[in-house]
Amino acid sequence: MAMIAPSRRLRRTPFSAGVEAAGVKGYTVYNRMLLPTTFRSMVEDYHHLKEAVQIWDVSCERQIELRGPDAGRLMQMLTPRDLRGMLAGQCYYVPIVDETGGMLNDPVAVKLSEDRWWISIADSDLLYWVKGIAYGYRLDVLVDEPDVSPLAIQGPRADDLMSEVFGDSVRDIRFFRFGHFDFNGRDLVIARSGYSKQGGFEIYVDGSDIAMPLWNALMEAGQKYDIHAGGPNLIERIEGGLLSYGNDMTMDNTPHECGLGRFCNTHTAIGCIGRDALLRVAKEGPVKQIRAIQIHGDAVPACDRLWPVMAGSKRVGSVSSAAWSPDYKTNVAIGMVRLTHWDEGTDVQVETPTGRQFATVHESFWI
Amino acid sequence: MAMIAPSRRLRRTPFSAGVEAAGVKGYTVYNRMLLPTTFRSMVEDYHHLKEAVQIWDVSCERQIELRGPDAGRLMQMLTPRDLRGMLAGQCYYVPIVDETGGMLNDPVAVKLSEDRWWISIADSDLLYWVKGIAYGYRLDVLVDEPDVSPLAIQGPRADDLMSEVFGDSVRDIRFFRFGHFDFNGRDLVIARSGYSKQGGFEIYVDGSDIAMPLWNALMEAGQKYDIHAGGPNLIERIEGGLLSYGNDMTMDNTPHECGLGRFCNTHTAIGCIGRDALLRVAKEGPVKQIRAIQIHGDAVPACDRLWPVMAGSKRVGSVSSAAWSPDYKTNVAIGMVRLTHWDEGTDVQVETPTGRQFATVHESFWI
Repeated sequence: MAMIAPSRRLRRTPFSAGVEAAGVKGYTVYNRMLLPTTFRSMVEDYHHLKEAVQIWDVSCERQIELRGPDAGRLMQMLTPRDLRGMLAGQCYYVPIVDETGGMLNDPVAVKLSEDRWWISIADSDLLYWVKGIAYGYRLDVLVDEPDVSPLAIQGPRADDLMSEVFGDSVRDIRFFRFGHFDFNGRDLVIARSGYSKQGGFEIYVDGSDIAMPLWNALMEAGQKYDIHAGGPNLIERIEGGLLSYGNDMTMDNTPHECGLGRFCNTHTAIGCIGRDALLRVAKEGPVKQIRAIQIHGDAVPACDRLWPVMAGSKRVGSVSSAAWSPDYKTNVAIGMVRLTHWDEGTDVQVETPTGRQFATVHESFWI
Repeated sequence: MAMIAPSRRLRRTPFSAGVEAAGVKGYTVYNRMLLPTTFRSMVEDYHHLKEAVQIWDVSCERQIELRGPDAGRLMQMLTPRDLRGMLAGQCYYVPIVDETGGMLNDPVAVKLSEDRWWISIADSDLLYWVKGIAYGYRLDVLVDEPDVSPLAIQGPRADDLMSEVFGDSVRDIRFFRFGHFDFNGRDLVIARSGYSKQGGFEIYVDGSDIAMPLWNALMEAGQKYDIHAGGPNLIERIEGGLLSYGNDMTMDNTPHECGLGRFCNTHTAIGCIGRDALLRVAKEGPVKQIRAIQIHGDAVPACDRLWPVMAGSKRVGSVSSAAWSPDYKTNVAIGMVRLTHWDEGTDVQVETPTGRQFATVHESFWI
């Protein structure tokens, strides 16, 4: 690991003061913004996430706001997922593809009302695509990045902590639904969602000025639940099969290759970009697909590039994320595997920078 | 400075093996790719850049390729700079704006032929904007990111080194022009350009497979010129007034605010996006503008956020990049200053994280 050179271009967040006070040790850069990844150590943070509750500065999940009479039409153009049944108050995971069906982002769409949406994005400047489409189609909609910074509360004690700060009704939010809650006289959207399998919430902090007051209130109320600052944990997200745009999928991949075919209602999502290409893919099926891959033997190094998945001398796939799992006592990994080798239990080998290791392809993830 | 967490999402480059062998100490992330910033130290690298010759892995200057009958039309839609007089073999610095005149990127356009262009981008996913516009306007053009990774040779000995590897005719390339040169039987575009004021070239390395052979050939031939690996140097680029997208300008700024009004031919660049807004700006003039700012007193810390520029209790601007200059023995900075205080020699104060320091606004940069 090397040092990261500071600059304004790698944007700080409204919670950076809290993150620094909590002793952040490592960052990644996500949407040109600092995303804290490590506080005590990746393994300590991992165990703690599964046992207690963590506060995550995920401001880097930037929002794209669509506002105006054509907001709903634009949102449906952007994704092959059929949005007709979606109600205000719901969050949908929506693959976004280009005209050839290549993944541009895999955000969560938040429907605030019929003519107002937020798109909570993964790591690519989706704003540029959305603005380009809105301009090219002369849609009557405003598209911009509002001053909204998500803060995640994740872990088994998340409900307990959140109810201390926002009241018991926060417990009633259903998965991928959101409600409006008051903090210091400000209305905040809170969703039951987040980038872990340990349960929790994402608070859409609308206005940088209340970011640190909210951080401090949660930290104080969380003392009795052993709260610590944390971040998306590489080990836990691989165990849970949570994909990462840019790591496990890129513009080269269709949603079907990413195992997201169930979110592509290409027959009914009328007007969506990429429909023709995805209809073809849906008909023929993908030739490679995301799989859980168990890598046997010693702990693997950090996966900072694709590792070939081999069947003897033939390449049959790539590993894109990998880590040693203390709980499962094996290396857990995410990769794409060709259809000849993607069945449950198929034996393969993975070429890591430290050598070739035996591995087994699985159809489901660990958590 | 914190550590950077490795992942595939922060892309390695075809030159990473060479960069690591050269002892890289710090990176930034640029276009979701690793950009080496420091080898020996920022100051050592700075002095060496001005005295000898450096090899820079600037793969992160990704290319967008436009190919097809509408390539030229699309290129002109993208920028308010009039491209009618531009010949194949020329490079143009082209501001790219949205419909409101907000800067989306400030790339260099490389005209390979009438129907084939590269856009060598700064730090934003301009590809998404270009693809969105091409799709929205149903243009007959292919838009993608080719496997082209620029390698820069910068410094006073750049011509000597390059002629050893590519022959003496490389010396004849004029500023912002390019030629085709052979390396190991491969045709490479080489331009006289680069992100320093020390002179040099950018080689558009077309095909990752020849990246390390070329790196090694240049390193070997460069021994007698004291070649070292380097990267865009913060101190030198501020002295030279080289702006950085994301640092010194963002989508909030017009080209006129960035001092790029001379690249906006809004009366003649027919069909360009943002024309209406920029005509208005050109007529009234901007109310704030990029300036060189000399910050007196002690060396300032790293500028990782906007620093207020004050006139007494009134905010009159922001500093976006700053560093101590060993050669000029003062802090050099780039910022935006309101028209009331942007005249040469105006005294202001800058609020750095370590306190308020006196400063002077200048109309021209140091180099």
